[in-house]
Amino acid sequence: MQQRYEGQTRMLVAIDSIVFGFEGANIKLLVIKRGLEPERGKWSLPGGFVQPDEDPDHTAIRVLKELTGLDNVYLEQLQIYGKPSRDPVERTLSVAYFALIDMNKYQQTLSEAYHAEWFDLSELPELIFDHGEMVKRARKQLRYKAALHPVIFKLLPERFTIPQLQQLYESVYQTAFDDRNFSRKLLSTGLLIKMNEKDKLSSKKGAFYYQLNQQKFTANFEAMLNFVPNHDKIVADSDF
Amino acid sequence: MQQRYEGQTRMLVAIDSIVFGFEGANIKLLVIKRGLEPERGKWSLPGGFVQPDEDPDHTAIRVLKELTGLDNVYLEQLQIYGKPSRDPVERTLSVAYFALIDMNKYQQTLSEAYHAEWFDLSELPELIFDHGEMVKRARKQLRYKAALHPVIFKLLPERFTIPQLQQLYESVYQTAFDDRNFSRKLLSTGLLIKMNEKDKLSSKKGAFYYQLNQQKFTANFEAMLNFVPNHDKIVADSDF
Repeated sequence: MQQRYEGQTRMLVAIDSIVFGFEGANIKLLVIKRGLEPERGKWSLPGGFVQPDEDPDHTAIRVLKELTGLDNVYLEQLQIYGKPSRDPVERTLSVAYFALIDMNKYQQTLSEAYHAEWFDLSELPELIFDHGEMVKRARKQLRYKAALHPVIFKLLPERFTIPQLQQLYESVYQTAFDDRNFSRKLLSTGLLIKMNEKDKLSSKKGAFYYQLNQQKFTANFEAMLNFVPNHDKIVADSDF
Repeated sequence: MQQRYEGQTRMLVAIDSIVFGFEGANIKLLVIKRGLEPERGKWSLPGGFVQPDEDPDHTAIRVLKELTGLDNVYLEQLQIYGKPSRDPVERTLSVAYFALIDMNKYQQTLSEAYHAEWFDLSELPELIFDHGEMVKRARKQLRYKAALHPVIFKLLPERFTIPQLQQLYESVYQTAFDDRNFSRKLLSTGLLIKMNEKDKLSSKKGAFYYQLNQQKFTANFEAMLNFVPNHDKIVADSDF
């Protein structure tokens, strides 16, 4: 077998991760200070090059760990960015990954070596290369998923209060909801299970804790499938 | 500015396209005979290398045109495949694209140079490398989208009959539906608009043509968003 494909151009492949976190009030983005030239010291998404023996998915996990200290994070491929001019040094394609974390779980582990820092989405600094475009795309993905997908609950503790959930949605959609309407409409979906305990730290009256009714959520999501027999099986088998 | 990043390994990047077609009875996959070594002459997804001045999205369009003659096709990125061992010759990452076409529109344009051929999903030949895995992933994507997304209607002519739609769904889910149930449940969604004309070629009695009610479809899809104010705007703005 030949050693290589003739007449083709090899290029660098990198990954960049858009990591969204939620600490109870605002959605935040994790950025670091870039460690290499060009643009060293500028704000950047955590990223790095795919190594010869690495699947890009593993690069994403390794790089996030190295640059931020974060481990065991929910990561998914967003898309590849491949404009020929996107990196001024040489042709580099980047696979963008999308991550969501509950910041309270991770606050202590942020690496100081790269000045990893959380920024409010409304106060993002300028990012290098096409990283701003990646963040914009990831925010769309977040809104899209928030509307449909249990993944949004990865941003919350397992037990949460309605005001917490409202703050999350307000932060995702960058808009204020009417408290009573939000609570009424949300509870009317039947997607939340009320716990017996209350959170008494955030207000005098206290707010009951809730959990996501995962089973019902999935069923609702599949409402449009209701004319497909065995759709439970089909959807369970998909990557949903 | 430096000329290149030190100490990094450059690799080939390719694209491969999973093209699904529908001609009225079965979902089919477009495959070609591979034109280069290794595995020359074996069945393969239409694919090719990303060129120095090319965005992978453009590679996908170019390659599909060159290898199959197909143009103006709905294409979307599926995911990147990057196992270090996936190509036996040298490290090659592949961006998989997903395409859906109404075969009746394209039947005459298939290129003969690469023996492009449509195969029934139930009769797929063995494909090279990890192409079988890509097809499997794309079929999941198809089922997922079929349940939710107007994209499935890209496989049908603008006007279609209920039996045509049923065959499409039976082919997507590889299962038989009860005719009367399918038709009743489908029409009860209110997602289809009945035309005045009938298709009289397929049966003696004839079958009315329908069109997708795109507006209602979108509204239904957004049902879970109903507690978000201005959600029309938000979803319209997303990549949906």
